[in-house]
Parts: sequence; C-alpha cells; structure tokens
Amino acid sequence: MTMPPVNDLSTARLPTDVVGLLEGLCTTRAIRRYSDEPVPPAILRAIVFAATRAPSGSNRQPFRFLVLTDGPKAAEAKALIGRAARGIWSTKAQRDGYARGSGAVADSPKARMARSMQRYVDEFERVPVVVLPCLVRYREPHVTEGASIYPACQNLLLAARALGFGGAITGFQTLVETELRQLLDIPEAVALAATITLGRPEGSHGQVRRRPLNELVYEESWGQPASFAVDPPGTRHTAAGPPTAS
Amino acid sequence: MTMPPVNDLSTARLPTDVVGLLEGLCTTRAIRRYSDEPVPPAILRAIVFAATRAPSGSNRQPFRFLVLTDGPKAAEAKALIGRAARGIWSTKAQRDGYARGSGAVADSPKARMARSMQRYVDEFERVPVVVLPCLVRYREPHVTEGASIYPACQNLLLAARALGFGGAITGFQTLVETELRQLLDIPEAVALAATITLGRPEGSHGQVRRRPLNELVYEESWGQPASFAVDPPGTRHTAAGPPTAS
Repeated sequence: MTMPPVNDLSTARLPTDVVGLLEGLCTTRAIRRYSDEPVPPAILRAIVFAATRAPSGSNRQPFRFLVLTDGPKAAEAKALIGRAARGIWSTKAQRDGYARGSGAVADSPKARMARSMQRYVDEFERVPVVVLPCLVRYREPHVTEGASIYPACQNLLLAARALGFGGAITGFQTLVETELRQLLDIPEAVALAATITLGRPEGSHGQVRRRPLNELVYEESWGQPASFAVDPPGTRHTAAGPPTAS
Repeated sequence: MTMPPVNDLSTARLPTDVVGLLEGLCTTRAIRRYSDEPVPPAILRAIVFAATRAPSGSNRQPFRFLVLTDGPKAAEAKALIGRAARGIWSTKAQRDGYARGSGAVADSPKARMARSMQRYVDEFERVPVVVLPCLVRYREPHVTEGASIYPACQNLLLAARALGFGGAITGFQTLVETELRQLLDIPEAVALAATITLGRPEGSHGQVRRRPLNELVYEESWGQPASFAVDPPGTRHTAAGPPTAS
C-alpha cells in the first residue's frame, strides 16, 4: 500500500485491494477501539473518495464530510461530543439494564458490549478521526432524505475496512448539535446526520451477528419469509436491539 | 460462481469475490437497463445476506426487505410503481428541462440521461426484481432514522455489483404508498424507504462522476477544503443535481 506525502496525492492512485467486495460487506462491523496511530492523508483521501461515490437523489450530492483530526477545533469538538457520548451511554446502560442479568457475568456478550462501550466513550477524545457527515437540505425534511447521506456513510465505513482501518457510526452529535454548529460554523440548513469515528483497530474484526435471515427478508407480501432467505453455513445470530433484563 | 438449487442453499457458501472492496465502492453506479434474465436464488440470497450485515442503531436491525420477483402480487406492485415512475419522470423531465438546451443534442450527457430514464420507467414492469426496503419504526420519525435502513440499501446495491448484477435506488414508491401497503399488507408503523430495482446489466458499469472532492470534504471547520481531499488521477467530474436549462 503506497503512502505518498499529502502534496503528492494528485498523482497517486488509490491503494490496491486486499479484501473482496462481498466479503467486505459481510464482515465489516463496528470498530470502537483504536490505536493512537493517526490516519495517514492517503488513507483519508481514499476513504472520503469512496464515500462520495455513493448515490444520492438525482445525483445532487448533498453530502458533505467534515473531518476532525488534530486541529484545535477538532480537539474542542471531540471534547464536546465525548461529554455527550458519556451522558448518552450512561443513560442507556442504566435504562437497558446492561449491568443486570447476564450483564453481571464478566465474559457474557452483554458485559463485554458494556465494557467496550464504556471504554469507547471514556476515551472519545483520543479517537484519531471524527467525521461529521452532513446533509445540505434543499427541501422540507422527509423520511427518504437519508437516502442521500447514509449510503455515503456506509461507503465510508466500508472503505476504512478495505484499507485496514475501522470505524463506528453513532448519533452522539444529537445532544450537542447547537454547540457544534457554533464551533464549526455549520449552517442551519445543513442537517448533522451522524458522528463517525475512525482509526486503526486495536484487536480484530469479528463475525457480524444478526437475526436469522428469514426474519428480515420477505417475498411477495409482508411477513412471508423469502424462499431464498437462507443463512450461509456457520452464520451466527443475535437478538435485535439492546439486551433485555435477563 | 456456484449456483445451487434453492433447496441446497443451507449448505452452500457465498460466491467467491472477483471485485475488490475499495474498487467496488468507487465504481458502483446506478444500473437502469437490465436483460430479462431472472436473478437466481443463490444470488438473491447473497445480496440480502450482505444487505442485512449493515449496521443499525443499537443493532436493532429494524430493516426488512420485501422482494418482488415473479409472483402475482409482484406483478401488481410493479404495475403500480411503474405508473408512479412514469408520472414522476414526466413531471421531472418537464420541470428540469431535460429536452431543452443541450438536451436537444442527441448524444449530450443530458439527452442520454433522459433516454435512459425514459426507457427505465417505460419498461418498469419488466424489471426482474424490485425490492422495497422497509423500516420498522420504534420511535417518532427523526432525521437520523435513515441511519438504520440506508446503509443496508447501499450494501444491497454493492452486493449486486459484486455478483455481476446491478441496481438503482429510487423514491418511486412515495406516490403509491397507500396502494402498496394495501396490496402487500405492510403495516402503518413501517416506513417504506425506497424502491430498488435489480437485474443483470445490459451494457456495462462506467465511471461514477461527482463534484470535485474538495467541494464535498471539509477539515476543521465547515467550508474549509480538506488538505487530503484530492481526486485520484483520471477522476471525471459532474455538476450536482438535475441539469440546468443550458
């Protein structure tokens, strides 16, 4: 993988692939633990280039990516979002009973998830890169407007995975939107769509777990499981959503 | 690429990749012309499996994919959406002046886009597969709810590309939502997020065109072009959105 200095990017091609497309789609999961290594400019370039190749309504390209790395405003924004993240997680852990039931058993999936989230929010200020994906609105808010920003967010996360990095998409910005707009000069007509964190994974990608495929895919009519909705051999399942109290 | 009969899918692995992850992200564009070839069950399985590996808030997995192929309700739904598509395109072509200016020149990008859209809507009923991605709501509508359905839509389109198929995401369903709910028994609490068409491409994938990268990616503050936002050599640009009258 070539790593040209930033002033040479205009002549540098994108890195060569080592992960396949379908494999990448099926194995990219949220990465919330990062080493302190910065993300090099050539990697950031490839990530945002891939993100902006995503579709949008009438190819209007209303997506903008505000990238926060190591500047003074980046530090302030990370501190703001970090405080929000700790508040959101604390409320959620309490409400969803992460410490109860199997959450009290140290190596249960529930307890591991809780530890991972706690560390993620506690160390938020150290995340190498925070990206704020924004949507420049040209009409009234509508349920389908996300179709012009979240495909690009998914491309961004997948591109990070393609390049040996990883990330997670969160809604932490919702609690501090006013402060972020002021700090970063984001206009009122622009919607903040998410907070994405990126970095070099500490630890490895694991298998993605979902509900059985035939609960998620229907054919001909709502609720009718599709004949072809058959999980490949070795697929691991999980219940949807936050854990129950058990 | 193995194509087991549908009853063997439980022992069949997913197809092997021939396209790289980053390459696939950067070269997947809307495909609107399909051969009449049906999409085999093993391909549909891989596509919906990849789609449902996408992230969603708290891994709630509120995404559902209603797949319409060749059944009687599928035919009715395609006819309904086809009528809506023709109405939407006719209005848009008129309003955005697709026949004016360079649109009057047969081989201009604008005229080619208009012909491609006209054929797409005219032949909508022949589209091999229509997928209605749906979002099972668990709270009041919010700008960020799309984060739990559109990443999965993007995975679906990318998976089609990985397997030699292609697709396009549209909002055609918005005009006939009431009729579709009735026909397909879709509950009121479920939002219809898009209409995705899939099939074997007639013609080939071409380069994706976007605005220059430094107009879409900022650093440290809104509007400040990112130092690393440099298009790779050979990138082709386009203005955003529908054509102007010129």
